[in-house]
Amino acid sequence: MTGWSRAKTSHEVNALIDKGYLVEAGEGISNGGRKPRLVRFNNQLGYIVGVDIGATSLEIALADINGSILRRVTQPADVRQSPEELLGRCSMLILELVVAHGIRPEQILGIGVGVPGPVDFTRGVLVAPPLMPDWENYPIRNYFKETFLSAFVVIDNDVNIMALGEQRSGDAADLDHFLVIKIGTGIGCGIMSSRKIHRGSDGCAGDIGHICVDKQGPICRCGNRGCLEAMAAGPAIAEKAMQAARDGKSDLLQKMMESNAGVLTPENVNTACREGDEAALEIIRASGQMIGDVLAGLVNFFNPSHIFIGGGIANFGNHLLIAIKRAVLRRSLPLATSNLVINFSRAGADAGVIGAIMLALEYLFVVKDDLHYSF
Amino acid sequence: MTGWSRAKTSHEVNALIDKGYLVEAGEGISNGGRKPRLVRFNNQLGYIVGVDIGATSLEIALADINGSILRRVTQPADVRQSPEELLGRCSMLILELVVAHGIRPEQILGIGVGVPGPVDFTRGVLVAPPLMPDWENYPIRNYFKETFLSAFVVIDNDVNIMALGEQRSGDAADLDHFLVIKIGTGIGCGIMSSRKIHRGSDGCAGDIGHICVDKQGPICRCGNRGCLEAMAAGPAIAEKAMQAARDGKSDLLQKMMESNAGVLTPENVNTACREGDEAALEIIRASGQMIGDVLAGLVNFFNPSHIFIGGGIANFGNHLLIAIKRAVLRRSLPLATSNLVINFSRAGADAGVIGAIMLALEYLFVVKDDLHYSF
Repeated sequence: MTGWSRAKTSHEVNALIDKGYLVEAGEGISNGGRKPRLVRFNNQLGYIVGVDIGATSLEIALADINGSILRRVTQPADVRQSPEELLGRCSMLILELVVAHGIRPEQILGIGVGVPGPVDFTRGVLVAPPLMPDWENYPIRNYFKETFLSAFVVIDNDVNIMALGEQRSGDAADLDHFLVIKIGTGIGCGIMSSRKIHRGSDGCAGDIGHICVDKQGPICRCGNRGCLEAMAAGPAIAEKAMQAARDGKSDLLQKMMESNAGVLTPENVNTACREGDEAALEIIRASGQMIGDVLAGLVNFFNPSHIFIGGGIANFGNHLLIAIKRAVLRRSLPLATSNLVINFSRAGADAGVIGAIMLALEYLFVVKDDLHYSF
Repeated sequence: MTGWSRAKTSHEVNALIDKGYLVEAGEGISNGGRKPRLVRFNNQLGYIVGVDIGATSLEIALADINGSILRRVTQPADVRQSPEELLGRCSMLILELVVAHGIRPEQILGIGVGVPGPVDFTRGVLVAPPLMPDWENYPIRNYFKETFLSAFVVIDNDVNIMALGEQRSGDAADLDHFLVIKIGTGIGCGIMSSRKIHRGSDGCAGDIGHICVDKQGPICRCGNRGCLEAMAAGPAIAEKAMQAARDGKSDLLQKMMESNAGVLTPENVNTACREGDEAALEIIRASGQMIGDVLAGLVNFFNPSHIFIGGGIANFGNHLLIAIKRAVLRRSLPLATSNLVINFSRAGADAGVIGAIMLALEYLFVVKDDLHYSF
């Protein structure tokens, strides 16, 4: 990769070992000649933290500097809280992990943070986030740096870190072009192009939740009509189920709603679906079809080899996945679908936090010119 | 870019000058220190040919090895012809340019070819091309190599070479992420991601003509209903105008159709539009709006900084461009549109042939592992 000779590489690696950055890690498998010598980062150097802030949940993990997770914590959360409140809780949770592991806060060298909204990646702030308006331009980095003085902090949106996590999981490291779709309270897309996250010109690429699926559809929180998110994400699924219950289309949904103070959650719809409720099944299928119709267009445009489906609603299982697949295969061109794989995220619920750790590691060791952070 | 020292760079460049690959080209502008020495490729090395095969036209240019066009020829063409017929004509036209310039066929070192259909870039063949079914898997490279023995031949689709041409024109060389939309007999999109053509996993990225705009729309030649191409490209514009004439909605279109053996071309609609015909104007506006609706989704997904509109129908002028812009701005998210520029292609009709030359040059000098060609 460096283009260096064997002698120069050996010299430089030995210098890094002498300085304590790398340690020997045994021998690798020979591909004909001498067995390669393996090295890895010296775990004494410090630690990395991954923070995955979702619309309704919070996951934090402490990892060693090679990216292996050591400790973790998951909690429900609400991003409608103020940044101070939620980030304060994140800092406390990180400190708890640090204390539990018997290390000190200044040993944290990198913190990767995923947030559920459009991020101006070069500045590390949220811009016009529909789910969390109070967070606009809030200096998330500075907040963490007050407590973790030695840490380099990188902010990205939740689907981009999911895509990074997916790349680390299964065999996705060998995939050039893939998409990760997160279906939950919103709908977003992480884009891997030539093995790199495609963030776009303003850092907001992948915001597919506001692609129009019905010009006469309901008004979305973005102000437009018939956005995919407003018609197929978690809140829309719950809303349609409550309507079905009120219309007397499902005894089960009606009973669930009565015993649930007059409301239904997306999870209720999932439960009803698993119990064979036709109305619930139809709602899930309709969501899958709308998501698939949008993905069909993106497949024609982007021609990915894989689409991985993740997020809370993805856990609703095969009915959703099958409806998505059917819609994509019906509408995309044969050349773009003949090798296309659509499946659940292989990293599952961990994709976000793994990706946040990878993001921090990537920027800790590599000088890049795409962040306008002052150090 | 190489990471080489000044001494090593100087040594290598001098060796290339001694071998006749490079020649001195004067001094550049100092940025503080010694004035840089400029070099360029030695034009004595040979020549490059760019071939841009459109659905209805053919443009060929002979260029020097620095990419400057020396001679060119443009002709109407019909890709429904057999590959042998059309490629035979291309070869003849290249030979005419070669003879007119007083050089020999074996001095052609590279030929870049753009074709209006999905290309498997690594194999250099068309795959399931809707406009030109006879060309499927036809060995275009071998055809040219029979006549031009020394030439390295690279095949790509017409919109990818347009994007390469656009990158060479105006100030697009500094743009990281942009789209080039070709609107003609079909509708396609060239995608520039991080300054490189994004071809996708099967080489068919950018095939936006078959994104669905109306599930109840007319049947497209791809077999699906309501594809963008079937509803907004050249043939649809002509069809709608003929319907308007038959329905008595426009005296002008009716007269044009009568004096034109009962048919109208897209160009007729353009003429009527320029003469202020309301029905023609409405048809052009409707096309622009449908194209803009699709682009709005792609802007949310890809977040480009620029969209350049080219192709025969783009020449229909401001009414089309304004309708496209309006639809994109209405439907895309503010963060993705605040810096977005939508305009006509700056390279115009030349984008394709310039891009074909650039494509040939790129592969002539750089060893890349993404072509499975045998040499």
